[in-house]
Amino acid sequence: MGVPRSSDGRRPKGRLEAFSDGVFAIAITLLVLEIVIPHVKGHELLHEIFRERQMFLAYVVAFIAIGAVWMEHDALVGALEYVDAVFMRLNLLLLLFVAILPLPTGLMGEYAADRQGERVAVVFFGIVLVLQTLMLILMARHAERNGLFGRDEEDEREEEDRVRYQLAPSLVAFAVGAVIGLALPYAGLAVYLLITLYLAVPGDTIERLVKRRR
Amino acid sequence: MGVPRSSDGRRPKGRLEAFSDGVFAIAITLLVLEIVIPHVKGHELLHEIFRERQMFLAYVVAFIAIGAVWMEHDALVGALEYVDAVFMRLNLLLLLFVAILPLPTGLMGEYAADRQGERVAVVFFGIVLVLQTLMLILMARHAERNGLFGRDEEDEREEEDRVRYQLAPSLVAFAVGAVIGLALPYAGLAVYLLITLYLAVPGDTIERLVKRRR
Amino acid sequence: MGVPRSSDGRRPKGRLEAFSDGVFAIAITLLVLEIVIPHVKGHELLHEIFRERQMFLAYVVAFIAIGAVWMEHDALVGALEYVDAVFMRLNLLLLLFVAILPLPTGLMGEYAADRQGERVAVVFFGIVLVLQTLMLILMARHAERNGLFGRDEEDEREEEDRVRYQLAPSLVAFAVGAVIGLALPYAGLAVYLLITLYLAVPGDTIERLVKRRR
Amino acid sequence: MGVPRSSDGRRPKGRLEAFSDGVFAIAITLLVLEIVIPHVKGHELLHEIFRERQMFLAYVVAFIAIGAVWMEHDALVGALEYVDAVFMRLNLLLLLFVAILPLPTGLMGEYAADRQGERVAVVFFGIVLVLQTLMLILMARHAERNGLFGRDEEDEREEEDRVRYQLAPSLVAFAVGAVIGLALPYAGLAVYLLITLYLAVPGDTIERLVKRRR
Repeated sequence: MGVPRSSDGRRPKGRLEAFSDGVFAIAITLLVLEIVIPHVKGHELLHEIFRERQMFLAYVVAFIAIGAVWMEHDALVGALEYVDAVFMRLNLLLLLFVAILPLPTGLMGEYAADRQGERVAVVFFGIVLVLQTLMLILMARHAERNGLFGRDEEDEREEEDRVRYQLAPSLVAFAVGAVIGLALPYAGLAVYLLITLYLAVPGDTIERLVKRRR
Repeated sequence: MGVPRSSDGRRPKGRLEAFSDGVFAIAITLLVLEIVIPHVKGHELLHEIFRERQMFLAYVVAFIAIGAVWMEHDALVGALEYVDAVFMRLNLLLLLFVAILPLPTGLMGEYAADRQGERVAVVFFGIVLVLQTLMLILMARHAERNGLFGRDEEDEREEEDRVRYQLAPSLVAFAVGAVIGLALPYAGLAVYLLITLYLAVPGDTIERLVKRRR
Repeated sequence: MGVPRSSDGRRPKGRLEAFSDGVFAIAITLLVLEIVIPHVKGHELLHEIFRERQMFLAYVVAFIAIGAVWMEHDALVGALEYVDAVFMRLNLLLLLFVAILPLPTGLMGEYAADRQGERVAVVFFGIVLVLQTLMLILMARHAERNGLFGRDEEDEREEEDRVRYQLAPSLVAFAVGAVIGLALPYAGLAVYLLITLYLAVPGDTIERLVKRRR
Repeated sequence: MGVPRSSDGRRPKGRLEAFSDGVFAIAITLLVLEIVIPHVKGHELLHEIFRERQMFLAYVVAFIAIGAVWMEHDALVGALEYVDAVFMRLNLLLLLFVAILPLPTGLMGEYAADRQGERVAVVFFGIVLVLQTLMLILMARHAERNGLFGRDEEDEREEEDRVRYQLAPSLVAFAVGAVIGLALPYAGLAVYLLITLYLAVPGDTIERLVKRRR
């Protein structure tokens, strides 16, 4: 419990997890509504589906992004003993950025054939990813400073490693990806894909690599 | 348990929480579907997104509103020992008003450029907020009168303070905001934002402020 | 446990509850997407909203219907000791009819001004309600015959009363409502509303009334 | 626990279940949004609903498919002692294919009257079903090889039977159904329906049939 300040504001984490799982699950499932295949004649449908491949790519990147953020969230909250009032509000802000991701995802698909519009959509998407990552870092920092991890120092150190070796570099890399996307939209999207895949690497794998380097 | 009347109708609160979390999570995530960016040429997309800034504002206000109501709901139900049949029905009515919020949110975005329509949308939004707050107060009152808080009188007193210092004034303020919105739609929206931010202040912070004044 | 046959197929009920709560919560929240206010000039918006009052009525009836079925489901599953494979499949069929309710709800709103279409929509809506109620009865019967209530005979008797005094009469009444709806759509809708309100009466209130009569 | 390797990566399965239940529940409920009844004059509505019967058929097949995959998922994860990092990522990939199912479902309904388009939609649908089944098999294999079933060897053997007698044959049969669908779309759809119904047969019924044969 580190240094317990006072008992006020300490709450069990069950409903925060349930509500967050709900928002993550809905946002990740709503993404499919952004894939719109225009109605064509039947013999052109296959061709049309292939022509919308950018939309499927955007879908996959967004799906992995939300999935990776969910797994980071699961790892962080799972390591906590309880949550407090500030943590709940930071969490709500994270969920706001998670819930809005279908919007730029849809724009990326919609403007796939229009380079000018695609730039805007890719940068919009990148900014949302930066904000999600930022919130995760702020939540971890807050939990650390307020003793929310409880007595288990192992958990706390693992989360510190995750922030240092996964979240913080990803934050920078998403911003770099957004800048690249300004000039080359698809290169930006590729950068996002690589970062989300890196974020999805299990925490303990990161830890092992880190320990070896030390 | 206060004065337990009879055991009938007392139910564990697990599924009420799960079902309510589901409705809150879906309603808060569906809000994003109300942000519709009309299709424009690519080089105008950035400009178009900025032009729809009222929609984003409406999104943020509605998101905070549902988030605040969820947190009040979490605090109230978390303090209960069990729920009863009447509480479940009041809760369902609360959820009806939560689930309908995306509708006036969408109207606020849609009529942003049309002052006459915006007035209607802002008042509609305000009425839904008033009804949500009213339901929370009725649920707290019912829980108090029927001994649903169990033996923990601390919890009960905290909830009383929350009703007195947060919910009841917010109810009045939302109604005032709706009246202001009749004349000045954006001023009304700003009032809602302030109230939802106040509702989102943790209960124990309110309690501390109150104790100091006593 | 009544007469336990064999241990096969007996499963804990946790995930069935979680999955069902999810479907109920989503279906009840999706209903709002069926309320579509056509875009009009701002000064006509208030008038337009009033003109769509049938849509709001359909929304409220459908919301109460799903809410009532959820509460019946909660009471039934809450009384069980565990579920079995057949129960899970009956439950899935119930969820199919719950999930489809937004469709006739939307049609009732859409054809409000067109009596011929409204008849079809009201009957469609009624058939879905009949099927939902039928599934609840089949689930209760199956649970009873296979000893899923466990040792608590009190729970089992309460569920029997609920079937006899709430579900079975409602089944008939929904069918009657649909027939009435064929001739007088709005009278049919009113009948549905009354039945769903009756279904939403707590089980133990019914039990008390029944005991008095016995 | 079989041979526990190291404690790293082993996680409780609660949130994986909650998040997955959310995605399953949303995907299965979103299917109804794919049923679009074009607006017609009121006296033609009944006829129009009948004309869209292919859409209802596609809805039912997709509903049973997701329901069957959910029950397989429930049986598999329910038998595990805990999950690990790889299992969570395989699970996320399964959810990606679950969440995308509304898309080909919608196409099947949309192109019902257009044989060329229907072929494409039915094959698309079949490929998604193949991928879902493949992921379930990979998850079961991974759980087996890494001792995630814990000490209960009964559970493990039951899951092996399920893979051998339900999932693996279904994988092949879905692929065959897709090939058939290339030539005869509706025959392909009928094959899918049969397979999903077979997948929905309880695991212990399969086990009994298997034991009798041995």
